[in-house]
Amino acid sequence: MTTYRHFYVKSRAKTSPDINLKDLPGSAGRLDIVARCINAAFWLSYGIRKNVVFHTILHGEPNAPIYIRLEGEKLRKVSPDERSIAIFIGKALKKFDSSKEIESTPGIFVARKSFEELLEENRDKNFYLLDENGEDISNVEIKTPFFLLGDNVDMPPEEKKLALDYGAKLVSLDKKSYLSSHCIAILNWWIDKNEQENSIS
Amino acid sequence: MTTYRHFYVKSRAKTSPDINLKDLPGSAGRLDIVARCINAAFWLSYGIRKNVVFHTILHGEPNAPIYIRLEGEKLRKVSPDERSIAIFIGKALKKFDSSKEIESTPGIFVARKSFEELLEENRDKNFYLLDENGEDISNVEIKTPFFLLGDNVDMPPEEKKLALDYGAKLVSLDKKSYLSSHCIAILNWWIDKNEQENSIS
Repeated sequence: MTTYRHFYVKSRAKTSPDINLKDLPGSAGRLDIVARCINAAFWLSYGIRKNVVFHTILHGEPNAPIYIRLEGEKLRKVSPDERSIAIFIGKALKKFDSSKEIESTPGIFVARKSFEELLEENRDKNFYLLDENGEDISNVEIKTPFFLLGDNVDMPPEEKKLALDYGAKLVSLDKKSYLSSHCIAILNWWIDKNEQENSIS
Repeated sequence: MTTYRHFYVKSRAKTSPDINLKDLPGSAGRLDIVARCINAAFWLSYGIRKNVVFHTILHGEPNAPIYIRLEGEKLRKVSPDERSIAIFIGKALKKFDSSKEIESTPGIFVARKSFEELLEENRDKNFYLLDENGEDISNVEIKTPFFLLGDNVDMPPEEKKLALDYGAKLVSLDKKSYLSSHCIAILNWWIDKNEQENSIS
């Protein structure tokens, strides 16, 4: 049995579908970060992790907030490189409809949704907020996890507070501050490793 | 004190300086993999890891093998996205001179070198060859490490044998097969974590 894993990354990426693929870090508003996080969340050497759901809310101009969700079980056609992932995010932004959730391509969903609505919809899971000053991950039991991460900037205090109101536990990988995509790769491995040890013992 | 870390990733990427930045996974011969490995090796939220050296040998057409080394202490100007890293690899390939090693941009070096020569030059370090069937990393003491990884294809048997002749130890992160870039992110964290625990105890 493998643990279902949810990852949320807050993003400041632009919400216009005209993404400049030559400038993901600049004019696209650090969309490269979201792309690498998606790579880290899903890819194994031989395919896609079916037991992962990735969530992001893009907060950039001109049409924020736009919520995008990728589901490992249904995800098709996307390649693991940043450019390919950014193209599929562009397709989601193109099909965005403020009145309802749309499946823009297989396994990718787009809708109008705030961070608070996302937390409310997922309150049956356990929220873990990545924070250098949180409890060391080695000492934390990870169960039905929904991990919350910032992009290159820490989550703003009001969102942190909201997450804490929804019972989020602060967890830390290390006193160092890692890229969000590296955190996700590490978390996936850490859960795999603990699952394997539990299945042996 | 932080451990110096060397990572080598074998690559099948093309050795022509005319890199198609719109098609790193295709016509560039999976140069996207090398770019992501470099991202995983060096970047922290607030800068570059000074204690990392990254090595690759590109084995693709038309001018293989070309050896490229990035040194964290000297690395400048490169951004963490795939496109930026690929551009700097292109610059290295442009300045390549088969007769001597060139520093193509700050911290990036390019030369003619075989895998065997690389092993020979670094025999003062300990080689660890990533392999699903190796010893579990939790049980291995990591000292003066030089990690050896394949790209999307396992290292060929003759190179594995060569590495073993140079004393390489087979180590495993898990029975699952992870992307090389994810392995590097995990290894960096694992070493950080163990250093921190040792400094506390």
